[in-house]
Formats: sequence, structure tokens, C-alpha cells
Amino acid sequence: MSADLLSRIRVVLSRTSHPGNIGAAARAMKTMGIRSLYLVSPKKPIDAEAEARASGAVDVLHGARICASLDEALRGTVYAMAVSARRRELAHVSADARGAVQWLVEAARQGEVALVFGTEMSGLTNEEILQCRAVAHIPADADYSSLNLAAAVQVLAYEARLAALGAQALPAAEPALARHEDVENFYAHLEQSLLASGFLNPANPKRLLPRLRRLFGRARLEREEVNILRGMLNSFDKNT
Amino acid sequence: MSADLLSRIRVVLSRTSHPGNIGAAARAMKTMGIRSLYLVSPKKPIDAEAEARASGAVDVLHGARICASLDEALRGTVYAMAVSARRRELAHVSADARGAVQWLVEAARQGEVALVFGTEMSGLTNEEILQCRAVAHIPADADYSSLNLAAAVQVLAYEARLAALGAQALPAAEPALARHEDVENFYAHLEQSLLASGFLNPANPKRLLPRLRRLFGRARLEREEVNILRGMLNSFDKNT
Repeated sequence: MSADLLSRIRVVLSRTSHPGNIGAAARAMKTMGIRSLYLVSPKKPIDAEAEARASGAVDVLHGARICASLDEALRGTVYAMAVSARRRELAHVSADARGAVQWLVEAARQGEVALVFGTEMSGLTNEEILQCRAVAHIPADADYSSLNLAAAVQVLAYEARLAALGAQALPAAEPALARHEDVENFYAHLEQSLLASGFLNPANPKRLLPRLRRLFGRARLEREEVNILRGMLNSFDKNT
Repeated sequence: MSADLLSRIRVVLSRTSHPGNIGAAARAMKTMGIRSLYLVSPKKPIDAEAEARASGAVDVLHGARICASLDEALRGTVYAMAVSARRRELAHVSADARGAVQWLVEAARQGEVALVFGTEMSGLTNEEILQCRAVAHIPADADYSSLNLAAAVQVLAYEARLAALGAQALPAAEPALARHEDVENFYAHLEQSLLASGFLNPANPKRLLPRLRRLFGRARLEREEVNILRGMLNSFDKNT
């Protein structure tokens, strides 16, 4: 069961600058039994340094899937968790790594899930974080909180492994979580509906859409709920 | 209180091959609020690669103390914990990292403590492990358990930080733990006494001394107890 849960976790590295860090991340994952790696627009291709740092995890490194966008890397997942060094104010629900992986592993009982890491220098953009359902942060020292990318992957993979090993083989929670693409399609539909209705002013959008993402992200939308919401929007669309 | 406990933890790297790993370890430590680094006979001096990997932790890197032996690096500590990828049969008490750091932090209430890491290729020798009081191991995947040295430092430093942050400001447990050098002097005395008594046959020592170290290591000797044991040995010595 636990190995099964770990096989459902993918690590997504967005716009990584240094191939060596990708290799080191692959090694960190594999030591914890996580083997599925997605790379969103890496700045440089996999090179000899990446292979050297991957050590015995070159299979994970070379099995990495290259994606053009985070959206593409999250397709098929039912839950995505952003990893951030600092607490984000607007972002969804957030928790320390140890608590956050409990949500991740719980969602993994239903399908594929993702741990999402940003660039070495600036982490994830707000847009990327808003595509995730929750944020995990590592409780680092306030004076120096800059973990190396692969070190952050190691900590989250380690926590995920312990959580998966600790997860009892309970029956999965009943309602099926919505897939990433279904939720994104809903957000796109929502935006169109709000523009059409005039509630969303494109000249002055304020923080409306991020706030809505935060709300729905916190809710961990179920598949049937997305269908209902889309149906609601369709019904509104007809009146505008 | 927690910062105080973290300031009492030193990281000891024994016979490290790659300076880059020392730099990365310094960074891993500093992100978790641990700044005291000891290097036992590093294979190569600190170089530009070490500084690059240390990033914002070059102060920790350059503050490292170089020691000729593990014994020297452990002087002044009241508790030393070896970190090992695999469970060791003969070695003392052992536990998973999460449980083991509780002992470490508990001992830190009384004085300086150490986390001890071996070489990249082969870890710690049995002799080095026997100089520690307990062994922590990281519950890695059985198929590939080879964490990078700095990644292992990151995991243990992270666990130690959480344990220190979680430690309540309770009064320290009463009995004062014996310092490393007192315990080592006791072991040396014990060996001499056993040789003199004929119980230890230098031509066929079997595993006698390691087993005694295991026993006393598990006991977490107190200062006064070491005095008593030495007094006992003195009394035996007079009769041989």
C-alpha cells in the first residue's frame, strides 16, 4: 500500500537553472522510493553534471518527462502541492511540510498527486502556486531559509515517505477528487462567465480570480462538484 | 530555548572526500539553525566548489574546525550520535532519525552534542560508530538507500530542528551526562584493567570491547557513574 502511494507521487521541477540540481533531486527522490519526475521548461538540458549528481538514480533522471508548462505537468493529477520557502499570504491553504504531506498522501489514495518546486533563485511564481491546491513550507531558520533545491526535494520526499509508510490501508475516502485539468477548465469557464456577466472588470480585475482559486483550492473540489459548478456556470451564461 | 538547544549541536563530518559536499552540508545545517561544523581529516581542503555549494553559509564553512581524529572532534560533548544508512548489528542503541533526534535533543539540555557522518562511499567505520552513544538511520528505500552526504545532513538537521522547536522548556533532567573524553578514558582504563586481569586475551580479543561499549553506550553514562566505575577499576587494579 505504501509503495503504491509513493508510486502515485510525482515531483515537478519548474524552470530549473542548474542540471546538477535536477540530478541531485532525482537521487533524493529515489532514496525515498519516489521515481516519477517532471521537468517544466528546464533552462538547460540534462548534462554530465546532472548524471554525476544523480549517482545511482540516473534511471529516474533519464525517465523525466519534459513539459512546456506546469499545467501540462499537472495533467492527470488529483492534487498538487506547491513547496515554498516562505509562507504565502494569498495562497490557498498552507502548512508545514510534515502536516502538509498528510494531505498529499491522503489525496494519493485517489490518484496521482504532485509536489511542485520552483526555481533555485525565486521559487514558484504566484501563477504557479495558484495552480496548486495547497502550499507546503519547510520550517527553516528565519536568518537563512535558502535550502538547496535538491535538499528541499529530499526533505519533502522523506516526509512523504514516512507519511506513506504510516498510512494505514484504509478504504479510500469516498468522493472522487477532481482532476487538475477539470479544475483548470472550471476556472477558465468561471473567468469567462464573470467577464460576460460584468462582475470581472478586465481593466481593473483586482485579486478576484486568485481569491476564487484560493477558495476552491481549499475546498479540494470533488469531481462531481466540478460538474455541478460547470452546470451552474452554463446556466448563468445563458442569461448574460 | 530551542535556539539554545540548536546551538549545542555540532555536525561532525569524518574523512569527507569531496569539498563540495562539505559546502552543501554547511548550507543544509545553516538553514536549520545549526552552525557548528567539525571536519575530521577531510581528504581535500575547502575549495571554490565548497564555497559555491555553501552559498549563503560560507560563514559556517569557514568556521569549521579541522580535527585529526573523531575523538578530538567529540571532546567536550556529552552525547554523540552516529548517522548510518543501514542498521548496524553490533552498534549500541539505534533508531530511525525521527526517534533518535529526541535522544539527541534531550541530551543537548545538558551540554554539547554531536551528529556524526562518515564518508560518501562507505560511511562510518565500526571503530567510529563505537565512539558514539547511539546510531540514527534514515529510513530510505531498500532498493536505493544511498543519500548524498549533504542530503543526509539536511534530513537530520531538519529533524533536530523540529525536535528542538518542539522541546518544552522543561528543567533539564537531573543527572549530568558524562563528557565524551571521560567515557573514553573509562574505556581505556577498562581495557587495561581487563588485560591486567587476564579476562581480555590480546591474542584472541573476540568482540569483548565493542560489546562493552555497546552496553555502556546504551546506558548513557552519567558523570558520577563514570567516577564510580573508574573507582571500581582502580580497586580491581590493586589486586592484579
